[in-house]
Amino acid sequence: MNVGVIGLGAMGAGMAASLRRAGHAVHVCDAREEVARAFAAQGGTFCAAPSDVARACRVVISVVVNARQTEQVLFGEHGLAQALAPGSVFVMCSTVDPQWTVATEARLESMGLLYLDAPISGGAARAAKGEITMMTSGKPAAYAACSNVLESMAAKVYRLGDRAGPGSTVKIVNQLLAGVHIAAAAEAMALGIRAGVEPKDIYEVITHSAGNSWMFENRMAHVLAGDYTPLSAVDIFVKDLGIVLDTARASKFPLPLAATAHQMFMQASSAGHGGEDDAAVIKVFPGIELPKKRA
Amino acid sequence: MNVGVIGLGAMGAGMAASLRRAGHAVHVCDAREEVARAFAAQGGTFCAAPSDVARACRVVISVVVNARQTEQVLFGEHGLAQALAPGSVFVMCSTVDPQWTVATEARLESMGLLYLDAPISGGAARAAKGEITMMTSGKPAAYAACSNVLESMAAKVYRLGDRAGPGSTVKIVNQLLAGVHIAAAAEAMALGIRAGVEPKDIYEVITHSAGNSWMFENRMAHVLAGDYTPLSAVDIFVKDLGIVLDTARASKFPLPLAATAHQMFMQASSAGHGGEDDAAVIKVFPGIELPKKRA
Repeated sequence: MNVGVIGLGAMGAGMAASLRRAGHAVHVCDAREEVARAFAAQGGTFCAAPSDVARACRVVISVVVNARQTEQVLFGEHGLAQALAPGSVFVMCSTVDPQWTVATEARLESMGLLYLDAPISGGAARAAKGEITMMTSGKPAAYAACSNVLESMAAKVYRLGDRAGPGSTVKIVNQLLAGVHIAAAAEAMALGIRAGVEPKDIYEVITHSAGNSWMFENRMAHVLAGDYTPLSAVDIFVKDLGIVLDTARASKFPLPLAATAHQMFMQASSAGHGGEDDAAVIKVFPGIELPKKRA
Repeated sequence: MNVGVIGLGAMGAGMAASLRRAGHAVHVCDAREEVARAFAAQGGTFCAAPSDVARACRVVISVVVNARQTEQVLFGEHGLAQALAPGSVFVMCSTVDPQWTVATEARLESMGLLYLDAPISGGAARAAKGEITMMTSGKPAAYAACSNVLESMAAKVYRLGDRAGPGSTVKIVNQLLAGVHIAAAAEAMALGIRAGVEPKDIYEVITHSAGNSWMFENRMAHVLAGDYTPLSAVDIFVKDLGIVLDTARASKFPLPLAATAHQMFMQASSAGHGGEDDAAVIKVFPGIELPKKRA
């Protein structure tokens, strides 16, 4: 089956490779032409623009950075939407404001196109293995048009409703928690270090106690190793907690912890750590000595 | 072996029962005399005052609410400290400011007494089974005087240093995370409900995603059930996050997330929910309809 993938970043590249491994004829497009050509050289079809993907495929998966880039892919010059055959499905995998996803579903529907609200999680390693998690919602016809494709990329596809919105909302809820938990892990570890406790002792106890979180366990290992090589960067959470706050602001809903964590990530970014691993948010705490990286 | 337990609350009662089951001669004392008498009626010795416990036991475990009560137990009228035989060990299990625990170790040492900094976690159910976690630090002589006793109460005894301080610090770090995670879980769940997603869908996805925490999984089950019967009350986190913030303030260390979460618990308490389960912090969010308790 011809499947398009637009955006070959850390997640998109792994998803496209998983689709290829499952036997699909993958058509790829990326703003960095050389990245798309390199992928196609291993099997697949290089496309210069989204409209070229649209002419070849009835299922197109978009894994770009944000809503603005997704709009560009759909409606910009050489965009997808005008070129897709009626009944084709657009699978939207970015982290976006739920109101935007609802509006985009309606806009594509008016053009005779199907839409799946399908944010993803799991990280690059799981994407490469075809084991991401997808938080999806959409019309039954949209699912019918692409469900075998989703199964080639994901270990788990949550189906959260029969219209766009719930998929992106649950992703936003997850990003709120992920961002707050990383910042809280940093704050707690910083306090323990300030009080003179060995970081590895803090890690050992907390990961076996009620204070544990998935993010504490994962990200504080980077702090113990003194290794801030970005797996996911500080600036990703500047962006994602920004979307979380925009989502809540639209209905005038208060998010005191997300707002505070967002300030911490922005403080880290302004201090020059935006491109480091998000665990570098711990560097906003002064007066402590963090573990050094081993030579 | 004669072992004293002072404070038969939810944790202390289970610990005392675990010691009794392990064959120790447990001497109990509680501000509520009838509670101590009821325990002793099942096996053990009722003591009217800490000084009576002191005259019978070389190991005394204190499981009272806070540092103030612990001071009263040790140094108040009919207190322990004056009555304990030299070389006896006082096992301090409350959540307290680490600076206080350091000072108390020194004060007892000057009286010829040993001190173990030994905050606990795990909840009442695990206390009853002799399976609490203890976050301990203290002099080797203090461990030597009581380690077989600790093993009768705890599934895991972390040894974090050879003086008082690290035990209480790690407990404080854990309470910071626990409090922030409960408040973050409430904030995230509230946002999802506000956006119209089913609470059980949010729970299902988050508990299988990177946004998960021990507290989200545990406490949001109470929200789904609409059941705010207190297992641990809102006011416990008003107290514990207060201690966390006092600890950091002593070294002028900033804790933006803990400070924000503390405000949320105080808001819940002021609104009349202080005695409800700590998951009731979600009630600070207006404009949402929470799941009702089934009849």
